[in-house]
Amino acid sequence: VGEGPTTNRQWLLAARPFGIVKESDFDFRESPVPEVAEGTALVRNLYLAFDPAMRGWMEDRESYMPPVQIGEPMRGAGVGQVIESRCEGFEPGDFVQGMACWQEYSLASPSAGWNKVPDGMPLTLPLHLFGITGLTAYFGLTDIGQPKSGETVVVSGAAGATGSVAGQVARILGCRVIGIAGGAEKCAWVTGEARFDACIDYKSEDVGKRLGELCPDGIDVYFDNVGGETLEAVLDHIAQNARVVLCGGISGYNDEEPKPGPHNLMNLIVQRGRMQGFIVLDYFSRFGEAIAELAGWLGEGQLVAREDVQEGIENAPSTFLRLFAGQNTGKQLLKLADPPIG
Amino acid sequence: VGEGPTTNRQWLLAARPFGIVKESDFDFRESPVPEVAEGTALVRNLYLAFDPAMRGWMEDRESYMPPVQIGEPMRGAGVGQVIESRCEGFEPGDFVQGMACWQEYSLASPSAGWNKVPDGMPLTLPLHLFGITGLTAYFGLTDIGQPKSGETVVVSGAAGATGSVAGQVARILGCRVIGIAGGAEKCAWVTGEARFDACIDYKSEDVGKRLGELCPDGIDVYFDNVGGETLEAVLDHIAQNARVVLCGGISGYNDEEPKPGPHNLMNLIVQRGRMQGFIVLDYFSRFGEAIAELAGWLGEGQLVAREDVQEGIENAPSTFLRLFAGQNTGKQLLKLADPPIG
Repeated sequence: VGEGPTTNRQWLLAARPFGIVKESDFDFRESPVPEVAEGTALVRNLYLAFDPAMRGWMEDRESYMPPVQIGEPMRGAGVGQVIESRCEGFEPGDFVQGMACWQEYSLASPSAGWNKVPDGMPLTLPLHLFGITGLTAYFGLTDIGQPKSGETVVVSGAAGATGSVAGQVARILGCRVIGIAGGAEKCAWVTGEARFDACIDYKSEDVGKRLGELCPDGIDVYFDNVGGETLEAVLDHIAQNARVVLCGGISGYNDEEPKPGPHNLMNLIVQRGRMQGFIVLDYFSRFGEAIAELAGWLGEGQLVAREDVQEGIENAPSTFLRLFAGQNTGKQLLKLADPPIG
Repeated sequence: VGEGPTTNRQWLLAARPFGIVKESDFDFRESPVPEVAEGTALVRNLYLAFDPAMRGWMEDRESYMPPVQIGEPMRGAGVGQVIESRCEGFEPGDFVQGMACWQEYSLASPSAGWNKVPDGMPLTLPLHLFGITGLTAYFGLTDIGQPKSGETVVVSGAAGATGSVAGQVARILGCRVIGIAGGAEKCAWVTGEARFDACIDYKSEDVGKRLGELCPDGIDVYFDNVGGETLEAVLDHIAQNARVVLCGGISGYNDEEPKPGPHNLMNLIVQRGRMQGFIVLDYFSRFGEAIAELAGWLGEGQLVAREDVQEGIENAPSTFLRLFAGQNTGKQLLKLADPPIG
């Protein structure tokens, strides 16, 4: 393929982050485009997706995924188009999704978790609503939170990709939904577009006081994306038999020393509350059913999904950092290239 | 009843405790023995029972029970003997149990939650193994902890009345059981008499390090009686799908300011863990079935119940304080009088 691409621009993990992630934790490199080994396909990446959980993959500790090694391309999901294939089932021109990593070209194979984007699906939806983000919201809310119609559901990170879907699903299931987000613009989107019943601006309001006002009968389900002080404020206001869905704790991901937890865990005793974590990969066998339900709601206009699209592989680290500065509105994506005409 | 008792020695709540409970938070008083109103029976109290949760009843805040009011007799369970009755179902000579409060004589009635001690049952057993203590251990372990045979169960406060029963029930259900208790004597009792597989002495050992050694495959169920640093140490070692039973948090009950919670709640996400509180009164309809099962195990010699018996109504406050100093071994009781011959 003499006229094919020759240079693969990449970002490698350069250092384990200490405290706040910095651009200098990553190294930029121009590598040769990889050889297409038997059983793989060469993919030109079009969009990369960014998620707070990727902060955990940078650390050298056992978790639900192995850590990224120093000198390896930073791990991250993406969608791209097959430009050369020695892999059955992947043809040139196919759109595929998988662990693209922060680079322009990847080698894809079904055994490495890549699969085709269904025909006609907007290319970015597998990176959020129909991907790990939306599935995390769906299973965390429905399976762990188990909301019942008429209950009060609070969602932190409500303008984020996961929180906004969790809250909208709760609204669709008949719950009263209160969001917590940072800044007037985000809060306006949460109530206006995502149609939560209310949204607390943690940057300008006293979260605990507002929760007390907005949830006079207590909080039945809390979908927690942030941990920290917000979790503590919510625990002060839980209703009897409350369920706290531990989805993430972005407020602490960049701490040099772990912050202490909520001082009021004993409220879980008095209120017979349950606090539970989950990993969405455990629901793999039910992904199809969940995507079908989310797609139905999207088609009916009951669900909106928002994207924040930055551009250019050179901006991968700075785009990642937007998450921790609370700068993104909706799913954080990075566009690397336009798809060529089929 | 001219020759009946005339003086009722009592301890009243004198002050809401700030920080550590002190004897001066209670007032000693000699009152007249109460008139036996229609529908009540006069009971001479024989044993009072003490429980860490009573610390919470002294505070002026809403909870699962109303607070004790200043000037009221301090609330507490007891057993006694009916000496005069205007209440159907209670006859002079009957042994009864109920909220006796810290006093020599109480007015009892079924509508106030008093009931007869079954014939032949040792008088103190309704105050622990067959009372709230044993039922808390039983339902917390089985219903919230849901241990499976072969799993590893850790119990803090393992030499205490609740913890020792929780651990023994786990052992009976086929689990490997590790206790945590304070001091060599308590630990020896936990492994020797209660037959836990091991016991960590938190006063002389590094709890986190020992948990790592004793639970190489992680902790499946943690029955938490203490909260605080011990809870944090356990969370570092939970197995996948672990269940944390929040039963109590004695380590924090006397804090002037609430202590921060564990910094590692995020382990509940990675390990898909569940942390859940409960109130034993919610299981009221199943008390009979649980007592029958506990009685069966006691009769078979599979279960031991230990008592720490102090004496004299004048020692009620100092006996209560033994709980927070970790001085009691087994259920803390106070004997007020010997039962007369039937």
